[in-house]
Amino acid sequence: MTSEPRSPLVRDIGEQGLLARVRRFCPAAVVGDDAAVLALPSDRSLVVTTDMLVDGVHFSDRTTSPADTGWRAAAANLSDLAAMGATPVALTVALGLPGDTPVDWVEDLYRGMVACLQPYHTEIVGGDICRSPVRTVAITAFGQVDPQRAIRRDAAQPGYAIVVTGVHGASRAGWELLLHPELGRSLSDRDRQTLIAAHQRPQPRLDVLPILWEIVAPEIPIAGMDSSDGLADAVLQICRASGVGAKLDSARLPMPSMLTQMASPERSIEWVLYGGEDFELVLCLPEELAVQLVQRLGNSAAIVGTITPEPDVILTNTHPTNPDRMLSLDGGFQHFAD
Amino acid sequence: MTSEPRSPLVRDIGEQGLLARVRRFCPAAVVGDDAAVLALPSDRSLVVTTDMLVDGVHFSDRTTSPADTGWRAAAANLSDLAAMGATPVALTVALGLPGDTPVDWVEDLYRGMVACLQPYHTEIVGGDICRSPVRTVAITAFGQVDPQRAIRRDAAQPGYAIVVTGVHGASRAGWELLLHPELGRSLSDRDRQTLIAAHQRPQPRLDVLPILWEIVAPEIPIAGMDSSDGLADAVLQICRASGVGAKLDSARLPMPSMLTQMASPERSIEWVLYGGEDFELVLCLPEELAVQLVQRLGNSAAIVGTITPEPDVILTNTHPTNPDRMLSLDGGFQHFAD
Repeated sequence: MTSEPRSPLVRDIGEQGLLARVRRFCPAAVVGDDAAVLALPSDRSLVVTTDMLVDGVHFSDRTTSPADTGWRAAAANLSDLAAMGATPVALTVALGLPGDTPVDWVEDLYRGMVACLQPYHTEIVGGDICRSPVRTVAITAFGQVDPQRAIRRDAAQPGYAIVVTGVHGASRAGWELLLHPELGRSLSDRDRQTLIAAHQRPQPRLDVLPILWEIVAPEIPIAGMDSSDGLADAVLQICRASGVGAKLDSARLPMPSMLTQMASPERSIEWVLYGGEDFELVLCLPEELAVQLVQRLGNSAAIVGTITPEPDVILTNTHPTNPDRMLSLDGGFQHFAD
Repeated sequence: MTSEPRSPLVRDIGEQGLLARVRRFCPAAVVGDDAAVLALPSDRSLVVTTDMLVDGVHFSDRTTSPADTGWRAAAANLSDLAAMGATPVALTVALGLPGDTPVDWVEDLYRGMVACLQPYHTEIVGGDICRSPVRTVAITAFGQVDPQRAIRRDAAQPGYAIVVTGVHGASRAGWELLLHPELGRSLSDRDRQTLIAAHQRPQPRLDVLPILWEIVAPEIPIAGMDSSDGLADAVLQICRASGVGAKLDSARLPMPSMLTQMASPERSIEWVLYGGEDFELVLCLPEELAVQLVQRLGNSAAIVGTITPEPDVILTNTHPTNPDRMLSLDGGFQHFAD
């Protein structure tokens, strides 16, 4: 057995050496100063979102390559911008690293981020690198939005239709496949790859925005957020912020056969509702516009329910013999539950 | 002995509970969405800077209260904006926290940040809270700058004077006093407090900018950065970016008697040059303007040397019997040296 050439470690090349390597992933014009300077169109507002990811909590070399970790971190932030109706402008990246981190790991992380950002002509314009006992990635993304077009959580109104883009539960199914490959026995190779890609390389839904603006005039308030913490969480958060409730029809939730081939119907619906990290959009808008939007989006986009004046979020039509179910945030991931 | 009422821990109140508490420190209009929306004046560029701070590396409960950690983190980012010639607009804060972190610690951290930001009408507009094995604070600050006025590192020209604002070495001396109180035996209480405050509550030098713009016309390029990593580091970084060198006159370095009462002359000058975290500005500009600037700033601002065409950074006049000294980055803090 020959051993692979070992990557140098972060402590071997020091902070300056690592910064020099990482700067290759950034545009030359913006690096080397205390801060980056960026021009914004004059009629746009700035949109800002930030995320921290920690080794062992949000990513792990066991299920995710550093390039995928980078991709997912960038995608999560672009998804937050999409959820606000904003177009991405740039990112900053702060890294906390133990001295024994391979330099290759850091470069692969950047490669993954840059690969995700590249189709959106979005660049990493600054950052920080410091020593930490645990690998930590903090990303801040900036976007620009027509202030009239900013999508808020608090604008849902009774009677509005609830639209979900794309498939929910696929990221969770992909994650389960990585941990328990035997769950994929009855899946085709292609379906397996689709689910794993949904977990490793999620696509922020920035493509939805131009279609949305074609259909919805600026004076019509629409509500929305992304489904990073799950579809149920998104609906609950929108309802709470808007002081309304919702009826979700379980028969209308997109349920790909890939999921039910892997898990029981009950478990599949749990993944769809609470799986998280699909980075799709959940939008609330007048029904006739919702119908047009779903037609234009195709590809699993669906109207899954209606906003109600009563504050509860009810899942109806769960099963011929089962009662309706009330959804709550407790079903989701609690960050400090240990 | 009666025990103080224990603060609840982060894991006791969970992510939602903690977010609710932390939001009290943020303006109501910007929280609760996937991202914050901010208006910028139309003729300004956006300036962005980011920093990560890690418990045990950049702060410690042993020498720094959580409120001071918050203040210092905010001050460091405002200082980066000042170094670019930018006025602060807003901050985002991402926190990684072990479940056993007292909620009081988190609230005090925010109190310190808000106290530092308040004079500049700058608010925390967003953030993230996640679980981490080590307390980690990642801050991103946004500012605005007249694009003609952005201060870069690469604009130093031979013959320019090098101006330092305020006192260097005081933050390091304050830190030494906290660790080794006996070093302060010959200091007055007031001097001790001054040095400790220089470490715990540094002031970003945003006050320098309006004075600078009165003296320097937009078409005159000036170079600068802040001295967060030390005065020597700032001069070296500016020289490297500008392809020039510098002669620093050690007799002209502001050397408060507080420092020499604590440490030998050799050690005092090390603190002044390499101590770091004073968050003063190091500016390079034509000499006649530098003279005006120093007169206007008063309060220890000084011309400490001259930019030279030769690339070395030389400290002259070190001691009657000593040769001149060449400065290098190696004298400074290396983040991965372990």
